[in-house]
Amino acid sequence: MESAHRPSRRLKHWGWGYEDEQPSQEQLRAAAGAIADRLGFGSRDPQAPVPLSKVSLPSPRLQPPPALEGICSLDRYERALHCYGRSYSDIVRAFRGQFDGSPDVVARPRDEREVEAVLEWALSAGAAVIPFGGGTSVVGGVGPLAGFAGRYSGVVTVDLKALDRVLEVDRASLGARIQAGATGPGLEEQLAARGLTLRHFPQSFQFSTLGGWIATRAGGHFATLYTHIDDLVESVRAVTPAGVWESRRLPGSGAGVSPDRMLIGSEGTFGLITEAWVRVRPRPDRRASAAVRFDEFMAGAGAVRELAQSGLYPANCRLIDAQEAAVTGAGDGRSALLLVGFESAEHDVEPWMDVALRICSDHGGALPNGSASRTARAGGSPSAGGSVGSWREAFLRAPYLRDTFVAMGILSETFETAITWDRFESFHGSVMAAAQAAVREACGAGSVTCRFTHVYPDGPAPYYTVLAPARPGEELEQWAAIKRAASDAVIAAGGTITHHHAVGREHRPWYDRQRPDPFAVALRAAKAAVDPAGALNPGVLIDPDGATGQSEVTAARRGRG
Amino acid sequence: MESAHRPSRRLKHWGWGYEDEQPSQEQLRAAAGAIADRLGFGSRDPQAPVPLSKVSLPSPRLQPPPALEGICSLDRYERALHCYGRSYSDIVRAFRGQFDGSPDVVARPRDEREVEAVLEWALSAGAAVIPFGGGTSVVGGVGPLAGFAGRYSGVVTVDLKALDRVLEVDRASLGARIQAGATGPGLEEQLAARGLTLRHFPQSFQFSTLGGWIATRAGGHFATLYTHIDDLVESVRAVTPAGVWESRRLPGSGAGVSPDRMLIGSEGTFGLITEAWVRVRPRPDRRASAAVRFDEFMAGAGAVRELAQSGLYPANCRLIDAQEAAVTGAGDGRSALLLVGFESAEHDVEPWMDVALRICSDHGGALPNGSASRTARAGGSPSAGGSVGSWREAFLRAPYLRDTFVAMGILSETFETAITWDRFESFHGSVMAAAQAAVREACGAGSVTCRFTHVYPDGPAPYYTVLAPARPGEELEQWAAIKRAASDAVIAAGGTITHHHAVGREHRPWYDRQRPDPFAVALRAAKAAVDPAGALNPGVLIDPDGATGQSEVTAARRGRG
Repeated sequence: MESAHRPSRRLKHWGWGYEDEQPSQEQLRAAAGAIADRLGFGSRDPQAPVPLSKVSLPSPRLQPPPALEGICSLDRYERALHCYGRSYSDIVRAFRGQFDGSPDVVARPRDEREVEAVLEWALSAGAAVIPFGGGTSVVGGVGPLAGFAGRYSGVVTVDLKALDRVLEVDRASLGARIQAGATGPGLEEQLAARGLTLRHFPQSFQFSTLGGWIATRAGGHFATLYTHIDDLVESVRAVTPAGVWESRRLPGSGAGVSPDRMLIGSEGTFGLITEAWVRVRPRPDRRASAAVRFDEFMAGAGAVRELAQSGLYPANCRLIDAQEAAVTGAGDGRSALLLVGFESAEHDVEPWMDVALRICSDHGGALPNGSASRTARAGGSPSAGGSVGSWREAFLRAPYLRDTFVAMGILSETFETAITWDRFESFHGSVMAAAQAAVREACGAGSVTCRFTHVYPDGPAPYYTVLAPARPGEELEQWAAIKRAASDAVIAAGGTITHHHAVGREHRPWYDRQRPDPFAVALRAAKAAVDPAGALNPGVLIDPDGATGQSEVTAARRGRG
Repeated sequence: MESAHRPSRRLKHWGWGYEDEQPSQEQLRAAAGAIADRLGFGSRDPQAPVPLSKVSLPSPRLQPPPALEGICSLDRYERALHCYGRSYSDIVRAFRGQFDGSPDVVARPRDEREVEAVLEWALSAGAAVIPFGGGTSVVGGVGPLAGFAGRYSGVVTVDLKALDRVLEVDRASLGARIQAGATGPGLEEQLAARGLTLRHFPQSFQFSTLGGWIATRAGGHFATLYTHIDDLVESVRAVTPAGVWESRRLPGSGAGVSPDRMLIGSEGTFGLITEAWVRVRPRPDRRASAAVRFDEFMAGAGAVRELAQSGLYPANCRLIDAQEAAVTGAGDGRSALLLVGFESAEHDVEPWMDVALRICSDHGGALPNGSASRTARAGGSPSAGGSVGSWREAFLRAPYLRDTFVAMGILSETFETAITWDRFESFHGSVMAAAQAAVREACGAGSVTCRFTHVYPDGPAPYYTVLAPARPGEELEQWAAIKRAASDAVIAAGGTITHHHAVGREHRPWYDRQRPDPFAVALRAAKAAVDPAGALNPGVLIDPDGATGQSEVTAARRGRG
């Protein structure tokens, strides 16, 4: 029961990346020493994960029909690999060998017809169905079902990565029709052959998929303007229990409520996304970037606000606080760092950068080494020196590093949000205070740092990173306490529980407080109509009870005013 | 039973604008002569509309409760004024004195509490409820109910124009909290006092309202980037039968399906929008605009495509075909005209315009009088000379002119859509051919012209204008035949039935063919859950039958593949 598309390299069943990328125990010890030196906590003698051979998995409750055996697996490795996403709590549980919630069957359909066949079988068998792309969710988006598992005869996880092709390219409109299972590198490689690029580079880029990005409203490369995959989607096609949901390919439309916007962010609750038309672009060959230092984070925020409101639309505009800049090796720990960049395949970007640097200068920003940290290149090479390069390297390395943190007993968590500028300073103050207090309370020590990942004319998207000493075996309680305190603070101060990490299962309590009640009524009813069995990704966004009762309408009415 | 907020000037009950703006019969005759000379058809002796005193209205079927009498009217004028929007068919029927479908009661609540009270009463009375802003719908968005009227005890039209205030301004985030009934000039005047502007200028700007723009996904001033009101909305608040639907005010979010995107474009089917936070901006004080001539429309389209893909994001980028340019007095009838403009409150826009004009030149565009038609101004004055000014004047005058056309027996209709660039040329060819054939067949003569109202990297939004001789008394059959042929051609060639005019009742047959079936299932179920009585704007987007039966799911499944 092997899929024809099974990758030749094996992914780690418990953490980030491939098995052959996992450092040796000596390498790990060396890294752990350096990390412990820098952070002041974390074991210099990292633990090893429970090997898969020692893991006990429950017996599969489902048996695929003969016609689907070729694309379905009951294999231990496959089931363990698809048990979790890659949130901190996922990695800790996988590291400790806890795989009780593994799916019963992992299906790897190779085309849309097979997606339909798997769905049809799973529905007829009374199973839950979890769509699975890169499995890089950091919010519990791909399972386990936990409290809802008993409602179903079993769980079928549908891994879509065999649907990995760029099917069509429309050079005139700069559009491409791409299958949902294509990973970042996979689709970029196919587009590069045509001189095009999607330029959607989330931190999970290496493994995450187009379908996953659309289902979760992933945030990408562009710091302004095209911040989410939402903005790059022309049309979507999904297989649902009510049939194929496919919108017309249109540059814009005003025909009622947007069908695409109801699928985008639906996190697999309506169906399995199989392909989409997306907006691509020529590879930029003119770039300018600069690293600007600010003595105070809030002065940098002032510059970012003016940049975001300037109509310049920088591709990069990431403000990193002093402590986080130091941790990533991009700063000296005394100054906040603003990375600002422009890129174009059409025109010289220097006039844009000139205005941007004038704005930074007006807000007290300093270019540390003159022209050395302002790089303008005609070539398309992605390399960059200095602070810009250091930060980018650290950005891509971060998910790998997190596995080492778990092995060292370091709690690492990120949370991210968005807020309008008028509230940002007090918001940031109260969120930092709440998170820091929770870190002290739960762990005794640790740090909370902040950067802006994306910015808008009306506000920034701040992204917080927590690093703290964990007590082995108690990490999940410590993590839950910090998560709860940070999320409570974000919601109390008016933010969103997620700017681009999605809701999944881990953000549900706060998402439920954030969303308008009548909208929840509408969403539950829409879900119940399209997926009457409540089979698709139960527990994400809404509970599998599905249908809206009059009591819910009454409850919503009580929320009035 | 007069509302405190009743405007002192009376709007025409049958057409565009105020009664005191209606030209005298002599003025009309003079205008008609000039129009007939230019078009080659149309009566030089315009008819007069049936005066309101001669109109017979059905007796109101509803009586508001004493508590609401102060804000409810059963007055003939009020009921006639709120009977129709301002589509061609609306104006013809109103001109001929047909007001059978008038609402029974017109409510003018003054605050959200009164909106709730009116809705509560209407629901308890078994009435249909039609939200009403400017009443400028050109797609039958505000009534009459026609075939569905019999399902309700009566119709209550809720005019929200008394909710007309800018409630809060957040200068730091460039946000403003504005009541849904504020008209374009009303909200701009209040924002101007703070040096700010929304810059959403649909053709209906003078009368249409923020709530109407949001409900219908109105298209505005910006030709690129912020094309629809959707992009300017930070959060929305609406009164629904299931309670208040209010989203958090956020610059961006990835928390599940967007609640705002489910209200935006809902055309009043979920509830009555009462206010919204919108993104405003400083009034631009630097502008550059140019009129570029192209021998061929398609050469101009090529320039527009490159401009739209350039990352320059011009505020204006409107390509007008030779015939339409001539009709508006902006061209000589031999060349297509491209109006391109940039504006900013932050930076000099000349470098942007330099790149834009280089692109136009590469595509064979010509600046007719050198610098005379390229105007760069530091001042904020909205006046502009030459072709740019002529076209803008014609744009704002058009809705008034349409009343004259009806009086002259000239059929005037517009339809608009969007399509990707790869399909544009054949799309345009087949749509023009179908519309022209229908015009010849229905009217014997007439013109179909085209302009781009908005453009995207992946395609334009073409807007077609039909002018043809009508046979008095048969206009509606002629109009329906042309509308049907044009809409069939748009849908057959892959376009959207509307880029920014909304769906209403007039676009329903084509909208039903355009939208994905499972999405329709979801929308109907969401509507049935939020508005179980199906009271809100019945017949718009979906039929009032509401709830989704299994047969519909089965039908949707048959549509698979």
